[in-house]
Amino acid sequence: MSKVRPISGFPEWLPGERIVEQHFLDVIRETFELHGFASIQTRAVEPVERLSSQGEDTDKEIYAISRLSAPAGELSRESRLGLHFDLTVPFARYVLENAGKLTFPFRRYQIQPVWRGERPQEGRFREFTQCDIDIVDVGELAPHYEAELPLVVADAFSKLPIGPFRIQVNNRKIPEGFYLGIGLTDVQTMLRIVDKLDKVGPDPVCDLMVAAGATVVQAKACLALAQINTPDESFVERVQALGVEHETLTQGLAELAAVIRVGAQQAPDLMVADLKVARGLDYYTGTVYETQLIGLESYGSICSGGRYDALASDGRTTYPGVGISIGLSRLLAKIMPTLSASRSTPSCVLVALADETDRAQGMGVAAALRQRGIPCEVAPQAAKFGKQIKFADRRGIPFVWFPASGDQRSDSVKDIRSGAQAVADPSSWAPPADDLRPRVMAWPSGV
Amino acid sequence: MSKVRPISGFPEWLPGERIVEQHFLDVIRETFELHGFASIQTRAVEPVERLSSQGEDTDKEIYAISRLSAPAGELSRESRLGLHFDLTVPFARYVLENAGKLTFPFRRYQIQPVWRGERPQEGRFREFTQCDIDIVDVGELAPHYEAELPLVVADAFSKLPIGPFRIQVNNRKIPEGFYLGIGLTDVQTMLRIVDKLDKVGPDPVCDLMVAAGATVVQAKACLALAQINTPDESFVERVQALGVEHETLTQGLAELAAVIRVGAQQAPDLMVADLKVARGLDYYTGTVYETQLIGLESYGSICSGGRYDALASDGRTTYPGVGISIGLSRLLAKIMPTLSASRSTPSCVLVALADETDRAQGMGVAAALRQRGIPCEVAPQAAKFGKQIKFADRRGIPFVWFPASGDQRSDSVKDIRSGAQAVADPSSWAPPADDLRPRVMAWPSGV
Repeated sequence: MSKVRPISGFPEWLPGERIVEQHFLDVIRETFELHGFASIQTRAVEPVERLSSQGEDTDKEIYAISRLSAPAGELSRESRLGLHFDLTVPFARYVLENAGKLTFPFRRYQIQPVWRGERPQEGRFREFTQCDIDIVDVGELAPHYEAELPLVVADAFSKLPIGPFRIQVNNRKIPEGFYLGIGLTDVQTMLRIVDKLDKVGPDPVCDLMVAAGATVVQAKACLALAQINTPDESFVERVQALGVEHETLTQGLAELAAVIRVGAQQAPDLMVADLKVARGLDYYTGTVYETQLIGLESYGSICSGGRYDALASDGRTTYPGVGISIGLSRLLAKIMPTLSASRSTPSCVLVALADETDRAQGMGVAAALRQRGIPCEVAPQAAKFGKQIKFADRRGIPFVWFPASGDQRSDSVKDIRSGAQAVADPSSWAPPADDLRPRVMAWPSGV
Repeated sequence: MSKVRPISGFPEWLPGERIVEQHFLDVIRETFELHGFASIQTRAVEPVERLSSQGEDTDKEIYAISRLSAPAGELSRESRLGLHFDLTVPFARYVLENAGKLTFPFRRYQIQPVWRGERPQEGRFREFTQCDIDIVDVGELAPHYEAELPLVVADAFSKLPIGPFRIQVNNRKIPEGFYLGIGLTDVQTMLRIVDKLDKVGPDPVCDLMVAAGATVVQAKACLALAQINTPDESFVERVQALGVEHETLTQGLAELAAVIRVGAQQAPDLMVADLKVARGLDYYTGTVYETQLIGLESYGSICSGGRYDALASDGRTTYPGVGISIGLSRLLAKIMPTLSASRSTPSCVLVALADETDRAQGMGVAAALRQRGIPCEVAPQAAKFGKQIKFADRRGIPFVWFPASGDQRSDSVKDIRSGAQAVADPSSWAPPADDLRPRVMAWPSGV
């Protein structure tokens, strides 16, 4: 048996870190539900043919699964299955499969791991958790949803210790119309090159565009467009000043202006129009989102998405949608070092035992506390009380309970932080609300 | 692109069913935390060599993963990865990997999907969710934990609409000592055969044992042992009456008696000693559990586990553990038809719009309601109020909110079930507590 070791790209948390992650998951879920999104989960696998051809790098990143000792020919009999690399493609399939049983517009959230066989690097994993919301409708999707989704994310983020952030919004029709307007027809290729702007800088992007068939003048025009970003609708004038005209461009500008306008009304300083945002996945057709942590811009987006008009279609009916996805693993990988849990166990109380024969009595105390929602556990073994207090202390459990025993005729409970001890009844005692559950705290800055 | 279709063995729930599942998940998690279990999650994959050789059928059921377009030779360079088929093997590896950072005895819960490439059939899936608790310690594990774990499960089940159930407990040392005592040395093989008793009945089991090398007298003795089950410690006398003696048998009887005794004290009628329970996985070394729904015994176990003394060992230190796992997918597959959610969305309120220009105002009402924890959404589009009420009704949303508009100078809210409508302020109105979240209900029996 090989030595146990981490597997690159498949991170795991320690119990205290997991409490931080659960806090994030709980706040995100609660916010999504407050905004009327219903939960679904989809199977981890899809037919490979449904996963492939969704964008630049996804094909070679798909993990296919096969039974370890599959009988010969099994793969040719059934269609091959792969692990999903996002939650949008499976959701689109789910909508098609269950369309008759859903009510539209359908608002759903989905929190699950996804898998991508890419090279692991900072903030990029092979297994990671995404928290998605999407709204799909039948035939047509109202544009106001494109403004709503970033507000939901902002509501969740405002309740989490993640510091300031900014949602960058673009509309694919803007570069598409612009590129067509200046005579560049291979829009997808050019978009993918411009998407590297933050990573490689303007000059290499210019070179790559020229290598892909653009003239230097066209490439520089595209760069000028990509470098426009404004916190308000003034981007429209700045694009118009570039002097390019195309129907798709006009439409994209109007759509993006509407999103930015609602954002400015409902959540000032949240959104910026940022015309370089492109997104790698091919299925987006209009609005696209990315999200930066302010001060950590180079880390890249921690929440992305967009509108897709044709992803879910059975040939007769199309279900256009818009979605946004919090990259929870990616976000936490960056900020976990700044956060901690007040303890690494849910237990608020350790019930001490003077003697192993008292265990049944201790279990009774614990049952009475749990009855009223107080997490607790009975000591692993009877021991000197000092040793039991140390055991609680090592795990951050704030209270130790001493059941009545011998000459001690009442139960008592000790706050092991202050040392204060008082007589207590397990059917009525309660800890301060702040101690009931582990709390998630940001380290004081500078630590 | 192939037509969308379900994949056999990979079930998915509709939104209303998912609310039922979430209710189960929430109650199970809450109960585990009340009992002081800390959450962890492990990566979905383990090295194949760690997954294999854990029992009868697991090897051929393992799903290996590989990148769709892996460069030639990639698999020979890295060790091959497979999806975990349970949560115990990954947990044992996690303990070894993080032993220096954990506090022992370590109580953890883990709720995740697992994968097994077996033939799908009623209640058997290829992807399914398990809810595990385990306690591991260093070197030695106190036996009282073997009595504690079924009580935690019983606490969770008592809060869920699953009807009566029974936890069957055995100790592997009993059949092992008994088999050795009558001269049968291939204990694993015989255990696996006896494990089929419920499925195939006593005569075929007898035949299989004889085919595997037992005499008819030995096989019949094993069957007599397997057919003992008692709700109290009287099984000890019944085993002794069979006249077999072996040190391991004596030890097993004492251990099982201790578990059954604590069970009878703390939760009368919960546990039975059932000497046919064996479990298919090889890593169990002492106490083993299975759980039947009473009246649905033939469905098999919906919650199983046991004690494992040697699963987590790095050669120098051993971390013995005991665990039990609720087969949530398996349980829900059976009882979902008896359950329903009061609505298929979290939304308690639909904010109606008389005109699309009122959307910003409607969003303000929704924000005020959410501020106080009331899930809601704004109407998809302005429409006649009757149409909006119908939209709410179709999804089970109990309240429709009418923001002040035109000659209607105050906001009002309508309970669309009763038709009662009243003036309301979004900063103070609250629905009845019962309506705030979707409720999970058992269908009236007979429906």
